[in-house]
Amino acid sequence: MLRSGGARLIGVLLSDALEMGAWRGCGSTGGLGRQMSATRQLANYILTSRLEDIPDDVRHEGRRALVNFTGCALGGSNHSAVDIAVRALGSFFGKPEACILGRTERADPLHAALLNGISSHVHDYDDTTPKNYMHPSSPMASALFAYASFNPVSGREFEHAFIIGFETGSRVANSVYPAHYDVGWHITGTAGVFGAVAAVGRLMRLTEQQMIWAIGLAAAQAAGIREMFGSMGKAFHPGRSAQSGYMAAVLAKHGFTAGEYGLEGPRGFAAVQAAKYDLSKVTDGLGKDFDLRVNTYKPFPCGIVTHPTIDACIQLRDEHGMKPEEIEAVRLSVAPLVKDLCDKKNISRGLEGKFSAYHAAAIGLVRGRAGLAEFTDEAVNDPAIRAVRERVVAEGDASVSEDGVRVEVTLRNGRVLAKSLEHSLGNLERPLSDQQLEDKFRGQATMLPPGQVDELIRLCWTIDEVEDVRSLVSLAVPPR
Amino acid sequence: MLRSGGARLIGVLLSDALEMGAWRGCGSTGGLGRQMSATRQLANYILTSRLEDIPDDVRHEGRRALVNFTGCALGGSNHSAVDIAVRALGSFFGKPEACILGRTERADPLHAALLNGISSHVHDYDDTTPKNYMHPSSPMASALFAYASFNPVSGREFEHAFIIGFETGSRVANSVYPAHYDVGWHITGTAGVFGAVAAVGRLMRLTEQQMIWAIGLAAAQAAGIREMFGSMGKAFHPGRSAQSGYMAAVLAKHGFTAGEYGLEGPRGFAAVQAAKYDLSKVTDGLGKDFDLRVNTYKPFPCGIVTHPTIDACIQLRDEHGMKPEEIEAVRLSVAPLVKDLCDKKNISRGLEGKFSAYHAAAIGLVRGRAGLAEFTDEAVNDPAIRAVRERVVAEGDASVSEDGVRVEVTLRNGRVLAKSLEHSLGNLERPLSDQQLEDKFRGQATMLPPGQVDELIRLCWTIDEVEDVRSLVSLAVPPR
Repeated sequence: MLRSGGARLIGVLLSDALEMGAWRGCGSTGGLGRQMSATRQLANYILTSRLEDIPDDVRHEGRRALVNFTGCALGGSNHSAVDIAVRALGSFFGKPEACILGRTERADPLHAALLNGISSHVHDYDDTTPKNYMHPSSPMASALFAYASFNPVSGREFEHAFIIGFETGSRVANSVYPAHYDVGWHITGTAGVFGAVAAVGRLMRLTEQQMIWAIGLAAAQAAGIREMFGSMGKAFHPGRSAQSGYMAAVLAKHGFTAGEYGLEGPRGFAAVQAAKYDLSKVTDGLGKDFDLRVNTYKPFPCGIVTHPTIDACIQLRDEHGMKPEEIEAVRLSVAPLVKDLCDKKNISRGLEGKFSAYHAAAIGLVRGRAGLAEFTDEAVNDPAIRAVRERVVAEGDASVSEDGVRVEVTLRNGRVLAKSLEHSLGNLERPLSDQQLEDKFRGQATMLPPGQVDELIRLCWTIDEVEDVRSLVSLAVPPR
Repeated sequence: MLRSGGARLIGVLLSDALEMGAWRGCGSTGGLGRQMSATRQLANYILTSRLEDIPDDVRHEGRRALVNFTGCALGGSNHSAVDIAVRALGSFFGKPEACILGRTERADPLHAALLNGISSHVHDYDDTTPKNYMHPSSPMASALFAYASFNPVSGREFEHAFIIGFETGSRVANSVYPAHYDVGWHITGTAGVFGAVAAVGRLMRLTEQQMIWAIGLAAAQAAGIREMFGSMGKAFHPGRSAQSGYMAAVLAKHGFTAGEYGLEGPRGFAAVQAAKYDLSKVTDGLGKDFDLRVNTYKPFPCGIVTHPTIDACIQLRDEHGMKPEEIEAVRLSVAPLVKDLCDKKNISRGLEGKFSAYHAAAIGLVRGRAGLAEFTDEAVNDPAIRAVRERVVAEGDASVSEDGVRVEVTLRNGRVLAKSLEHSLGNLERPLSDQQLEDKFRGQATMLPPGQVDELIRLCWTIDEVEDVRSLVSLAVPPR
């Protein structure tokens, strides 16, 4: 029944060897860190960071992320995934203390965090840090909004917690990327829970010991796999992470204990969930280097890795004006990871279209645009789009960057049209302007009266002047 | 910003190659399975299995597991971990429809599932399937009891769902063990969510499509790491898995979609969470081979891998009657995995003692017993126990089985006492009898009046005759 020796022991020894190296390597962040574990250093930063020490450009980028997040949460709030979740879970809701962004129902804050997370990610329209492919705002801000919708939180505290939550999630993601992502983790779910626990734990004023436990309890819940891509399960990840991070903070606040080395322990998050990792990426430059500076906002509501294809195909159509029926064949050369992520051709659901390189090419060539309407079930099943989609082939090519593409369209008359892109719209080299972010917001806030939208956007840009964030949150729900 | 090529691509390609092999290999279960994914086969089994087809010996073992689980949930219900969780989460509870085993409070069923899971595992006294080191009953039965505490469920349906949930969790664990466990996953948490979703999904009468989604949503939440061992976080795992599995079933029932290949997809549970896996262990012999037949029940409330050490040290003390102060040194030879799991010597909390080979030896030698009282904070800090604990050394020895131990005690007078055990009490070769299970139950059900305990035990043994399980559950809470 019980066995010993052989292959399993080699596994144990190998993993031990790998972990010991990393274990010793942790905390190598100069003076402060030599004696401190990564988890403790992070907890310490979360609790002692001061808003006035954060550079203005980072704070401005934080507000851009806030505008983008809030717009996306509104835009997704009427998606059927959210309708279903509200219907399914409504009978389990606790006291209706917390707001669900974009909706008139109220819920207990843990469920509100879950629902905000589904809303804000379901269109795949939320922000992305391309260096780790995470969507850092959705999980943490979903928890933050739930908390601040029924607790008194000043705008400055909120802004600060937003930045801390963002940085925490993205830094944890950096530490395990790319091995973690490549094997199939949905990093927005797994790293997102750390962002959520940081944001809520800061506002709840945990002690350092409690914050260490809270990070441990977050690690105990880090989950989410790429098999969910193309289904509602993908947006469930940041939702559940928001809820799990929130719960971790609440439990720790009351003294529920956890392992003290949630990040760096030999059986902690990094060692268990990544074949290769570097926890100095969590701790180095804390409070000095900010991933908000490398955050991006999408012009198209779909997987960011399909953006170059869409962008290039729209440009080809605009330049040549060919009709769908003239298209004989389309060849895409994309980075191997992009092919891996977006190799869905035979699709029938809108959510599947968000991760299909073939659909991306087809909507660009057929419709010349890629808005919410191009990722509905109807659009995915549109005969004209489907006909072109079926003519697309994609090949992984290591010479193409993950933000680039080469498109070659062969027309029935034999003519070949080609377009290469190095960087697509919305990335760091071609970022959306503040005005474009506002336009994106307005396009999604259709359930709110226009005057309310104006005021909500204004409060996001001036968050540090808001006395109590409940006044902002109340503008993010429709009048009853 | 975005990069391609190099080491990360090798990672992608390598993981792809590994996954493709497994992907093609799935469903190789003879006639039925050739065309069907593992997830679909499992869903199909969960929904079409019939109680009358399950052999009597398996059903009897299921009742033994039910007796053991219920007793452990009662025994843990007053642990400070549960007190804290109730205090922390009480304000988030929904309608108080569901019972929390052993307690007078009521909660919504999702929170009840969480709390039952913490109770039933917090003493590390619940059942174990030694072939995968999982504790299969806690996560699934915690959800099952929460569901059946406020829905009409017949005893036969309940018994059947219990068996299905047990088998599902343990089979999923088999498919990824040992690589999954060795790297640091707490398999009770990760595989447990599948047991919970199976048990609740069966009772909720999901369709096959819904059950497939529910399994996917379970995979999206599979979490739990061994870094939590020695803290309340360990018992949080089966609690959260019970809650997550329950939620997955509820969401899927309402049409919340998920990836269709939650288990076997290239980015599904097995590929992402195990370097090596075999999904035929989920599907082969479904409905014919039952892991309940190899389930074990603990005589000691601590990690099962410490049992041989405790057992041998109690025997040494009984045989030789030496006093603690006579002990000069203790040498343990244990399997390398046991050393890896239980290498905690400098401890101060009762929960840490449950995973300390050193504490195991000390309590056996000093007190000659290992009950709940030997794993309190007081016992761990007892000077006599601590003094012996500090004299223990443990070495990993691949020639010792994981259920065995060699103990060598050197006395101050130079005498050397030795004991080797091949199998410890409670394992498959030396199982607890039905009467011993009842005694164990009674020892933990101290919050219930004796007559109520008798009746509760009777209903567990005759579960198939119970008309509505609410009558059983109502006996598992103290009179108000």
